[in-house]
Amino acid sequence: MLSIAVLGCGRIGRMHAANIAAHPAARVAGVFDVHRPAADEVGALLGVRVCDSVEAVLADPAVDAVLIASSTPTHADLIEACIAAGKPVLCEKPIDLDLARVDACAAKIAGTQLPVMLGFVRRFDAGHRAVRDAVAAGDLGNLHQVIVTSRDPGLAPVAYLEASGGIFRDMTIHDFDMARFVLGEEVTEVWATGSRLLEPALMEKLGDYDTVTVVLRTASGRQAIINNARKAAYGYDQRVEAHGDGGLAISENHPAHRMVLSRAEFTARAAPLQNFFIERYREAFAAEIGAFVTAVTTGRAPDVGFADGRAALVLAEAALRSVAEGRTVAVSEIG
Amino acid sequence: MLSIAVLGCGRIGRMHAANIAAHPAARVAGVFDVHRPAADEVGALLGVRVCDSVEAVLADPAVDAVLIASSTPTHADLIEACIAAGKPVLCEKPIDLDLARVDACAAKIAGTQLPVMLGFVRRFDAGHRAVRDAVAAGDLGNLHQVIVTSRDPGLAPVAYLEASGGIFRDMTIHDFDMARFVLGEEVTEVWATGSRLLEPALMEKLGDYDTVTVVLRTASGRQAIINNARKAAYGYDQRVEAHGDGGLAISENHPAHRMVLSRAEFTARAAPLQNFFIERYREAFAAEIGAFVTAVTTGRAPDVGFADGRAALVLAEAALRSVAEGRTVAVSEIG
Amino acid sequence: MLSIAVLGCGRIGRMHAANIAAHPAARVAGVFDVHRPAADEVGALLGVRVCDSVEAVLADPAVDAVLIASSTPTHADLIEACIAAGKPVLCEKPIDLDLARVDACAAKIAGTQLPVMLGFVRRFDAGHRAVRDAVAAGDLGNLHQVIVTSRDPGLAPVAYLEASGGIFRDMTIHDFDMARFVLGEEVTEVWATGSRLLEPALMEKLGDYDTVTVVLRTASGRQAIINNARKAAYGYDQRVEAHGDGGLAISENHPAHRMVLSRAEFTARAAPLQNFFIERYREAFAAEIGAFVTAVTTGRAPDVGFADGRAALVLAEAALRSVAEGRTVAVSEIG
Amino acid sequence: MLSIAVLGCGRIGRMHAANIAAHPAARVAGVFDVHRPAADEVGALLGVRVCDSVEAVLADPAVDAVLIASSTPTHADLIEACIAAGKPVLCEKPIDLDLARVDACAAKIAGTQLPVMLGFVRRFDAGHRAVRDAVAAGDLGNLHQVIVTSRDPGLAPVAYLEASGGIFRDMTIHDFDMARFVLGEEVTEVWATGSRLLEPALMEKLGDYDTVTVVLRTASGRQAIINNARKAAYGYDQRVEAHGDGGLAISENHPAHRMVLSRAEFTARAAPLQNFFIERYREAFAAEIGAFVTAVTTGRAPDVGFADGRAALVLAEAALRSVAEGRTVAVSEIG
Repeated sequence: MLSIAVLGCGRIGRMHAANIAAHPAARVAGVFDVHRPAADEVGALLGVRVCDSVEAVLADPAVDAVLIASSTPTHADLIEACIAAGKPVLCEKPIDLDLARVDACAAKIAGTQLPVMLGFVRRFDAGHRAVRDAVAAGDLGNLHQVIVTSRDPGLAPVAYLEASGGIFRDMTIHDFDMARFVLGEEVTEVWATGSRLLEPALMEKLGDYDTVTVVLRTASGRQAIINNARKAAYGYDQRVEAHGDGGLAISENHPAHRMVLSRAEFTARAAPLQNFFIERYREAFAAEIGAFVTAVTTGRAPDVGFADGRAALVLAEAALRSVAEGRTVAVSEIG
Repeated sequence: MLSIAVLGCGRIGRMHAANIAAHPAARVAGVFDVHRPAADEVGALLGVRVCDSVEAVLADPAVDAVLIASSTPTHADLIEACIAAGKPVLCEKPIDLDLARVDACAAKIAGTQLPVMLGFVRRFDAGHRAVRDAVAAGDLGNLHQVIVTSRDPGLAPVAYLEASGGIFRDMTIHDFDMARFVLGEEVTEVWATGSRLLEPALMEKLGDYDTVTVVLRTASGRQAIINNARKAAYGYDQRVEAHGDGGLAISENHPAHRMVLSRAEFTARAAPLQNFFIERYREAFAAEIGAFVTAVTTGRAPDVGFADGRAALVLAEAALRSVAEGRTVAVSEIG
Repeated sequence: MLSIAVLGCGRIGRMHAANIAAHPAARVAGVFDVHRPAADEVGALLGVRVCDSVEAVLADPAVDAVLIASSTPTHADLIEACIAAGKPVLCEKPIDLDLARVDACAAKIAGTQLPVMLGFVRRFDAGHRAVRDAVAAGDLGNLHQVIVTSRDPGLAPVAYLEASGGIFRDMTIHDFDMARFVLGEEVTEVWATGSRLLEPALMEKLGDYDTVTVVLRTASGRQAIINNARKAAYGYDQRVEAHGDGGLAISENHPAHRMVLSRAEFTARAAPLQNFFIERYREAFAAEIGAFVTAVTTGRAPDVGFADGRAALVLAEAALRSVAEGRTVAVSEIG
Repeated sequence: MLSIAVLGCGRIGRMHAANIAAHPAARVAGVFDVHRPAADEVGALLGVRVCDSVEAVLADPAVDAVLIASSTPTHADLIEACIAAGKPVLCEKPIDLDLARVDACAAKIAGTQLPVMLGFVRRFDAGHRAVRDAVAAGDLGNLHQVIVTSRDPGLAPVAYLEASGGIFRDMTIHDFDMARFVLGEEVTEVWATGSRLLEPALMEKLGDYDTVTVVLRTASGRQAIINNARKAAYGYDQRVEAHGDGGLAISENHPAHRMVLSRAEFTARAAPLQNFFIERYREAFAAEIGAFVTAVTTGRAPDVGFADGRAALVLAEAALRSVAEGRTVAVSEIG
């Protein structure tokens, strides 16, 4: 049994803790939150120990690994501390909103053999993964275009948006990673555009966008199109489409159930989409824990690591520069 | 060019005439209707000759073949007359509502080498045919069950219903033929039940049913389930499903177009079904004409002939007896 | 927290125990199996107490309720014992394969106010339930036909089949319950047919069928069609379809994931179906535990109770008689 | 009856002539082709007059209108000649590959009240049109993104590609028009990228691309994404997707028929897509003729006219410049 401590007991940390508890080869070593009542609640629900401090967690030899689900600004510090304490890490995305801080963190943990896994959970979705696997297996022949559609069912709270680093760093970041996952080649060029159409006044105030399109290009000319919106009336739209000269693979949306209704005015009307990410990616979150347990117990590098977290952030920076300058930006310009 | 005369210029005769005109290897030799203005209208629309009588049509050496689309009670007489005149026939279903009359007709035309094709148009639908072809090609392994779903979008006019011979002879007759087409074995047993749920008062008055289920069984034990309703709010429901030990083939419904709408309350809502048979089976009607042209010009027996018309009627009789007696009826009891 | 003991630690008991453990308002009071190592394994996995005997479980005041997942022949005895001990029960279907034993059990527990819930898990499937809810809400207008398709992905082991009581009592029993659930009226007539097409030699030996069709009818004339096969190459086929004069609701199958592939030879090819019932009805099994917890804690009658278990068995008996006698059987003939 | 002459008797002209013949309110006034045998063949097939010259057609008072389906370089000359002769025109796209020639043509016909309709047939597809109608009706709320997917099933012949003007002017031109049709606002900015991945050697030689992505933007910030490939193994991929803050509308692909197959390895495998545009847009081509007949007989401006043909070409020019310069191009830069 692998004992994993969970830092951060908000909605996501709580879910991760339950998934660890349900995993046959893992247990929750303890939970911590700067807001003690949140940790107490999770501790009571799962019948696990509540820890007094990060230091206590990291000093505890019974803790085999750490899952970081605290707020974004703490991620880089905690990764560094975990590695220093000899604990493998599964960290929620992003590493940090600031590329310089990410690079400093990278420098600090350079050379470690401990697994550092990034929580790009969508890679563990069976449908999205089947698209990637179809590409890898050659079922699509030579890949030429990828389309990633990602729309949130509703606007996040304003406080969240203010701290989010903007749509490219917060929301598109998942799609940058998904595009990289499916493309199978590094991205060399980025172009992006952003509009304020859904919540124009708020977006203007935040200096952010609610509707964006990004096009990525690899050295060989493969193209990936990302389309995002910060809200979609019909729910959480999560699709991935890959075109090769041998075929097409699409990972389709998930309605909440499979009953379809037909009446005089229509046929085959399906239920609303699963809403929101905790429902839609429920199996993927469980599979992510499984991948982390495997990485730690086998010592093999995790499927998605620190470098992937950094690469996605670089694409976000390139997208921002593209919007600002109205031109295609080379990834090499960002660093 | 094969010159085909059309007897009967109602809605169906008119459509057949247009399909003949559009066929690259056929032309309309002339049209006739007991109601002269109906024939005149079709003649003017298609720029073809209007004939004065059936006798004139049959006596005309320029007429290579005849399509019978007149009212049901005239079918058997006209088939006999055409064969006597040496003209191949494509006759709309049914041959007659009365099995004795069908048998008399059979006796009269016995021994003819002329093609007599029955208008079971659904056999020419690309989707339904693909189900049958999957069975024939062994894609489904050994067939064990067939489900034929057939529902009209709305009730036919009362005058039509009164002359229809009842739901089994009028509506289920198509499904008996479809079941035979897919089963690939002759039916030996029939069980049926009928309800009055959609238009109870009218059905009571007519001694008819609006909702029926029929189960057919072949000697080897293959089963076919037919479900019918005389009206379906969501449109013309036409599906065929075949199960074998190697797979399943389903011929799905046709929405009027392929736009699907998603909103807050639902996703993937499709357009209403194509409504009614002239739209839904448009390509099938054209393919039916093609098959007739091929049969006449090559001298090969048509895909669906007189014996098929009789066999479907026998199953209708068996279904009626099953409903009356509350038991499984052997087809051999009907004759 | 409701403390539920689990009797029977086979595949299904194990799953129920895990679902109880995962329920926020329930805990596993203990597990028991006549084969001690099975109980030990579940006990270790979930960290729960292993009980020495049924008597010990029933005598324990800390046990609030009992889930019966032991072998079928023990069900009726255990229900009686639980009720005698004052423990609410959730019992896997069937109550017993013998109607007389079911009636004796009913007599023994007559008058109890304790919840006795039957494990017809499919009632808790979100899609199937949405069909029933559409009927109940009037979305379909007046219901006239129901089609229940249920096919197992592969043949059960011979030992299982020998003890199963035959396809109607073992497999169709779920569909009898589903038909009753959706029909909203009691069934008054039954007709059935059975074939030996998938495993003819084995079925002959067992005196059983591998392919059956059953048609049920209510007093008002509503019809329900059940089609079953003991194996389906393409996986676990579980569909429910309801037709009313206002619309159609279909609960569709569940592919394992939502990636669809298109290549030169085909388009939109989906993944195989979820296989088998533990995967397909995973959420339903969890919801079933939730419904039991609610019934026990609120004292409200469970959604599906002893009478439903008996009613489904009566329909199985009627189906057997119909096959034997080649006629429609009135449910009142069975009792 | 409107008498329409057809200039050009290649594959497309032939199809248009047949559609005119089948239209209840139109007839083919005559056909012409510079290659006489092509015209003779169509004349014989449809039983219509073969004309000796364009001049003879335009001088004939019995010709009410003209359909231009000859080669692209003749379009502008013929439009000018038709208008000079007082004949309404339906011209296949494009007007010309050269914007200056288009503008010269515009100047020549300036002020005419005669209908000049452009053959952007996809606007008449029921599914695509339903997307536009959903936007126009407000079913999607405020529109923010449109995705147009358009892929040919196979590479056109090299001779065709050499004369095509490149992918943006030849293939994407349809999608530029579709985007404009759905967006409901004029496009102000264009960005594009092109790759050589499917036929790299040939594309290099032609200076053309086989895989392109274009992003359009309107003044208010609406975005349209076009993705094209010159061949798609799975057939003719033609989809349109529109997102608004109230919903999503997708016009889905058309399989050749609706039979879906399930076997051990997959479920719901559909038939290949309709292949090619003459099949896929068959009803749309017929509806296009209908719209032209309506425009001419009512004197109302056609749904899609000269200005639309020019606007699409301007977007193609902007896309070419964007590719060349690696930047977002303002439509106003093109003129």
